[in-house]
Amino acid sequence: MRQKMAEMVHRIQDEICQVLREIDGVDYRQDEWTREEGGGGRSRVFSDGKVFEKAGVNVSIVHGTLSPQAAKSMGGGHELKGADLDFFATGISLVLHPLNPMAPTVHANYRYFERGDGNKPGSWWFGGGADLTPSYLFEEDAIHFHQILKDSCDRHDVADYDHFKQWCDDYFHIKHRGERRGLGGLFFDDINKASREDCFAFVTDCAESFLESYIPILMRRKDLPYREEHKQWQQIRRGRYVEFNLVYDRGTTFGLTTNGRIESILMSLPLTARWEYCHEVEEGSEEARLLQYLRKPKDWLDQ
Amino acid sequence: MRQKMAEMVHRIQDEICQVLREIDGVDYRQDEWTREEGGGGRSRVFSDGKVFEKAGVNVSIVHGTLSPQAAKSMGGGHELKGADLDFFATGISLVLHPLNPMAPTVHANYRYFERGDGNKPGSWWFGGGADLTPSYLFEEDAIHFHQILKDSCDRHDVADYDHFKQWCDDYFHIKHRGERRGLGGLFFDDINKASREDCFAFVTDCAESFLESYIPILMRRKDLPYREEHKQWQQIRRGRYVEFNLVYDRGTTFGLTTNGRIESILMSLPLTARWEYCHEVEEGSEEARLLQYLRKPKDWLDQ
Repeated sequence: MRQKMAEMVHRIQDEICQVLREIDGVDYRQDEWTREEGGGGRSRVFSDGKVFEKAGVNVSIVHGTLSPQAAKSMGGGHELKGADLDFFATGISLVLHPLNPMAPTVHANYRYFERGDGNKPGSWWFGGGADLTPSYLFEEDAIHFHQILKDSCDRHDVADYDHFKQWCDDYFHIKHRGERRGLGGLFFDDINKASREDCFAFVTDCAESFLESYIPILMRRKDLPYREEHKQWQQIRRGRYVEFNLVYDRGTTFGLTTNGRIESILMSLPLTARWEYCHEVEEGSEEARLLQYLRKPKDWLDQ
Repeated sequence: MRQKMAEMVHRIQDEICQVLREIDGVDYRQDEWTREEGGGGRSRVFSDGKVFEKAGVNVSIVHGTLSPQAAKSMGGGHELKGADLDFFATGISLVLHPLNPMAPTVHANYRYFERGDGNKPGSWWFGGGADLTPSYLFEEDAIHFHQILKDSCDRHDVADYDHFKQWCDDYFHIKHRGERRGLGGLFFDDINKASREDCFAFVTDCAESFLESYIPILMRRKDLPYREEHKQWQQIRRGRYVEFNLVYDRGTTFGLTTNGRIESILMSLPLTARWEYCHEVEEGSEEARLLQYLRKPKDWLDQ
């Protein structure tokens, strides 16, 4: 499974980057990096293109020994020691920040984790998800994005769309703002209640559906006209993205405290962001309409 | 002492804002706010002026009951319960981000804290400090800033400049970058090893010296010519400022988790910031010269 998952995420990285390259009109910068404690990764970043302000697609395969503290923070409920502290993790992680404020930011991440020899019950699992973060709300985009994710879930018994959508809304919560980061999507972790093959099939399906979930939205929005005030609101929303990632995101905070590759961990941050003191949106405006759904998440498929 | 300290920080806020108003050519926006659990504050923010991209000067007087967890995180080494969980805190906090990349950002904060009735040993203390965060290094600025702070320390037996400068370098450490946020200054906490009056006199001296420590630097730099590339480097440094404040700063993270007034807590964030993937500075450049001192702090008064 280690090899199968690693092959899958590399293949998906290639497929996604090929499409992004055509849309963006520039090539990505690729960095292959190794981690002192074991393993490494391949980061690809787009910048200075026509469409993306900053876009990163990263795969990694890392292994080593967890500190007891790191193992504890990872949950699972078992007291771990000795060989059980060995771990293996591989996954793909991407964040795309378009230039045009009408085109939403998107994030996706799919990963496989093993502890110890990965054979005991509970010693392996899959996790992942995808979420859409627009600055301006187009309901048809939100519905399309969620529909593709639901279709992936519906094809696999191990997946539960309603549960994973709720999990997503709960996870991407900027508590100090009382806002979600975006409109939702899927979030799941500890997926191991079926055979390893069945779990892998679900995660592969999700990863393979990424382009279909996002690219039609991007194509509809990337060339829409916009004004300076739309760009400023986008920059304020990007400030919120930074707040979520630096304060709450488990992957980011885990990476910052465990000697990860900083540039890959912080690849998810936007190129630019803005914090205006006491910024307020006008009642009845498009900005207020988005905020309403960030404050009270909606099930986009419950029409 | 509660009243004396509150009067002092309000007086200093008035003095500082009066000077900033003249330099910036615009008035501040003032918000008086109250806190549901007890107390409130007065926030003043400059924006859209000639000199500051964003500048905030905040005073607050808050009181209430600490959660046992908050009390524990506050240290002091005592098991607290009952009336000892009551607290009172008042202070002034300011962060000034100039537009011109040659003019440094500055932060200062002076505060007084009481627990319980504030009469037992260890149940009251002062804290504070000031630090200078330039994007471009002018050694004379760093020396001037530290000299004024040292002069304040030297006038009071309770203060130890060398210790507080070291504390500042240790505190403003962006661990995941291996960089300090800025060039240093003073940082101190738990100041109570003299009479309350003597401690108050030291903190008052520091607060009264703020304008002398910073304004001459600002006046020298605020109108220097600069190019787009200088502004971009300033924006990258501001990204680091955001990283420190959201990931490490105790005041910020404490505020975010304890229902503080979000806009006042995040007033310290710059208006705009930038994250370039794998940004590197040119060897021998001015940017590299600054970085060298962020990576290895210097005692600016040891000539």
